[in-house]
Amino acid sequence: MIEPRVLKGFRDFLPETMILKKELIKRLESVFESFGFVPIDTPALEYTEILLGKGGGETDKQIYRFNDHGGRDIALRYDLTVPLARFVSEHYGELNFPFKRYHIAPVWRGENTQKGRYREFYQCDFDILGSNSVNSDLEILLTIKEGFKVLNAGDFRININNRKILNSFLKKFDLLERSADVLRTIDKIYKIGVEEVVKELSENLKIGISYSWDIINILGLDNENKMGFTGDEIFETFEKYKSKLDNEEATKNIEEIESIFKTLKEMDLLNYFAYNPAITRGLDYYTGIVFESFILDRVEFGSVCSGGRYDNLTGLYSKNVVTGVGASFGLDRLLALMEDKNILEKKSTKTALLIFNLDSNKMAFYNKLADYFRKNGINTEVIYEKQKIGNQFKFAEKKAIKYVLIAGEEEIKTEKFNLKNIISGDERKSLSKEEIIQIIC
Amino acid sequence: MIEPRVLKGFRDFLPETMILKKELIKRLESVFESFGFVPIDTPALEYTEILLGKGGGETDKQIYRFNDHGGRDIALRYDLTVPLARFVSEHYGELNFPFKRYHIAPVWRGENTQKGRYREFYQCDFDILGSNSVNSDLEILLTIKEGFKVLNAGDFRININNRKILNSFLKKFDLLERSADVLRTIDKIYKIGVEEVVKELSENLKIGISYSWDIINILGLDNENKMGFTGDEIFETFEKYKSKLDNEEATKNIEEIESIFKTLKEMDLLNYFAYNPAITRGLDYYTGIVFESFILDRVEFGSVCSGGRYDNLTGLYSKNVVTGVGASFGLDRLLALMEDKNILEKKSTKTALLIFNLDSNKMAFYNKLADYFRKNGINTEVIYEKQKIGNQFKFAEKKAIKYVLIAGEEEIKTEKFNLKNIISGDERKSLSKEEIIQIIC
Repeated sequence: MIEPRVLKGFRDFLPETMILKKELIKRLESVFESFGFVPIDTPALEYTEILLGKGGGETDKQIYRFNDHGGRDIALRYDLTVPLARFVSEHYGELNFPFKRYHIAPVWRGENTQKGRYREFYQCDFDILGSNSVNSDLEILLTIKEGFKVLNAGDFRININNRKILNSFLKKFDLLERSADVLRTIDKIYKIGVEEVVKELSENLKIGISYSWDIINILGLDNENKMGFTGDEIFETFEKYKSKLDNEEATKNIEEIESIFKTLKEMDLLNYFAYNPAITRGLDYYTGIVFESFILDRVEFGSVCSGGRYDNLTGLYSKNVVTGVGASFGLDRLLALMEDKNILEKKSTKTALLIFNLDSNKMAFYNKLADYFRKNGINTEVIYEKQKIGNQFKFAEKKAIKYVLIAGEEEIKTEKFNLKNIISGDERKSLSKEEIIQIIC
Repeated sequence: MIEPRVLKGFRDFLPETMILKKELIKRLESVFESFGFVPIDTPALEYTEILLGKGGGETDKQIYRFNDHGGRDIALRYDLTVPLARFVSEHYGELNFPFKRYHIAPVWRGENTQKGRYREFYQCDFDILGSNSVNSDLEILLTIKEGFKVLNAGDFRININNRKILNSFLKKFDLLERSADVLRTIDKIYKIGVEEVVKELSENLKIGISYSWDIINILGLDNENKMGFTGDEIFETFEKYKSKLDNEEATKNIEEIESIFKTLKEMDLLNYFAYNPAITRGLDYYTGIVFESFILDRVEFGSVCSGGRYDNLTGLYSKNVVTGVGASFGLDRLLALMEDKNILEKKSTKTALLIFNLDSNKMAFYNKLADYFRKNGINTEVIYEKQKIGNQFKFAEKKAIKYVLIAGEEEIKTEKFNLKNIISGDERKSLSKEEIIQIIC
């Protein structure tokens, strides 16, 4: 006998969780489509050279890589962005730009499985490709906002920054060539606190202590408990930045992100957003706006939707430069968060009506009746064989099916049925099919 | 530069195909759920010993197998049945039986890519586990029927057989211990013809020629062009079988499948089904009813939904014996078939309304307007930047978005808009938002 088990870092989805996961996906897809995003799919397996590109990073160690029967060096995708870059390069002539795609699919990373991280997890990406307009940045933000609305996971805040602003400051401090290191350090401020960030800046990066504090103060990061600037503070901060940087290019960059916040304010949506100079995003390819989003009573779960703008998605595979802006909902993290908050009712069935079997010779009748209810939008099951009525009730209770329909010889003849609500205990007799539909729907 | 390409046997799904594929999945899911099937998911990667079991077959050569970073011997699933067996064994105590699950997911096989076969393809399985009732067989058949109805791929026929009947004949002919070989040969009758089948039976399996013809004749397979027996022929055939076999056990087996056809007749559904003694299904694990289904004007595409009953799904992994009956829609084959028949309209967008940009300073207004239409079920896009109106029309035409809304200064002030139907050329002026919804919906 072989022991039935899944690999470490992998998991099964039982119906009660899978029903919820599919529900979340359905809600997000409907938002994406309402904004004009269209679905694509790419293979789970790709040439390793496509996925790793220049390689050399953390990814190389985490990727599931092997040789196929034909000796090809292949690997499982570890994200949906690299396949998107390959896809857009390959199908450039077949796509209409701005090209707005979404892609909800599993990815695989052989990383450490501690802290509830899985080696197989879903990404839920949406991107706008081929537009430099600040209004495409805005549209990604509006899509995220609407996504959180329909997910209904609780109050949320979308924290926005723009790397160009940080770069203006770094330029002023003569730190531009070490920007990646500095940004990575600042990004940790909510995890390790202001003091530790200053310590790392000065000790590891050899930036003077007072210089380091200047960076913190000027960016307004001194209050570590705050999730960014909100409301009118946002616009005050931008004015402060402009006068501190006092530079035409910097002012232009600040005004770009300012225009997004102004539009959000005009749309009465400002309370969903914050300006947060500590958000830098680890990934090197972001070049403009960056954002992370949090459910306010579950900040400890980390960002549940992140992304940003990139200047050249396709550089590795094509001479066609494709800019873009995109984001990704952390579906598995959101599911865990919503389970933690007990928001979603766990059910192992979507069946609303169970037809009891009082006579196994009446299967044609029972199934036709079930068919009628299904056609009217009611998920319906029929018990396969006649058995004691008590067992049939037990089955309904165990499966948590709300309504049961009881029809013996007399009811079948008159087409008037008995309906019982298992939860309330209410029982009603001699109902027509139409009356039953009205009660259940 | 790295050449952007996918692996041989793999493919991208562009929006116009992915929209269709998702639509087919949505329709099937809704049928499955209406019958009370619930979704599950299992990992793409499993221990190789789980997937190969006793091994030794064709599967071993086709499977994508490798060692992970921890030195584990792992592989990508090549079907959804083996993972189901592992899943049910592992979660036996957590499931309610009869357990009705569906699972729509990709599987991977490194097989020859000729004849439109892919190395990554979707399976779309649904099974009822833990019931021996003939009415669970019936329910699988009703689900398939309803699946074909909602797929709307054309007239279809579900060909049914029962391995027990074939075995009764083989027993009579003293061929029971060679049944696998005989069934595999008979299964080829529509591909290679009656004469070839008789030749193979007599030459390869050393069954006398007249004996071989007896098998063919008694099973009623002499008319090779016929897709099984239909209508009253079905019941006549069963009577013939009963008298020929003249054996109590055989009669019981025949009456079981007969009862299914009787119920289908009583439900006025007999015209969707046939009794076809040539259907044996290659797989060894089927032990009862087996079936294959064809779209009648595309029989050459092969069966697009097949399955059957098995006695012991979990034998490899558990002492708990779990019987079941299940089927699988060939989603990619159906998609190819429907594309071949030009049934599905190919569209690269699901957007119904495009809001033109006559003033980039009015983004708050345009986006709020879009939000209003989205909330009313209309997928809506906004053009990001003001540009020549001719270019905006060209964009709408290229993307095949049916309606465009045109709102300049005056229209924004009065909240009365101009709407143009790009396809018919109809243009209407001064419409309220409500009127626009009525026109589009």
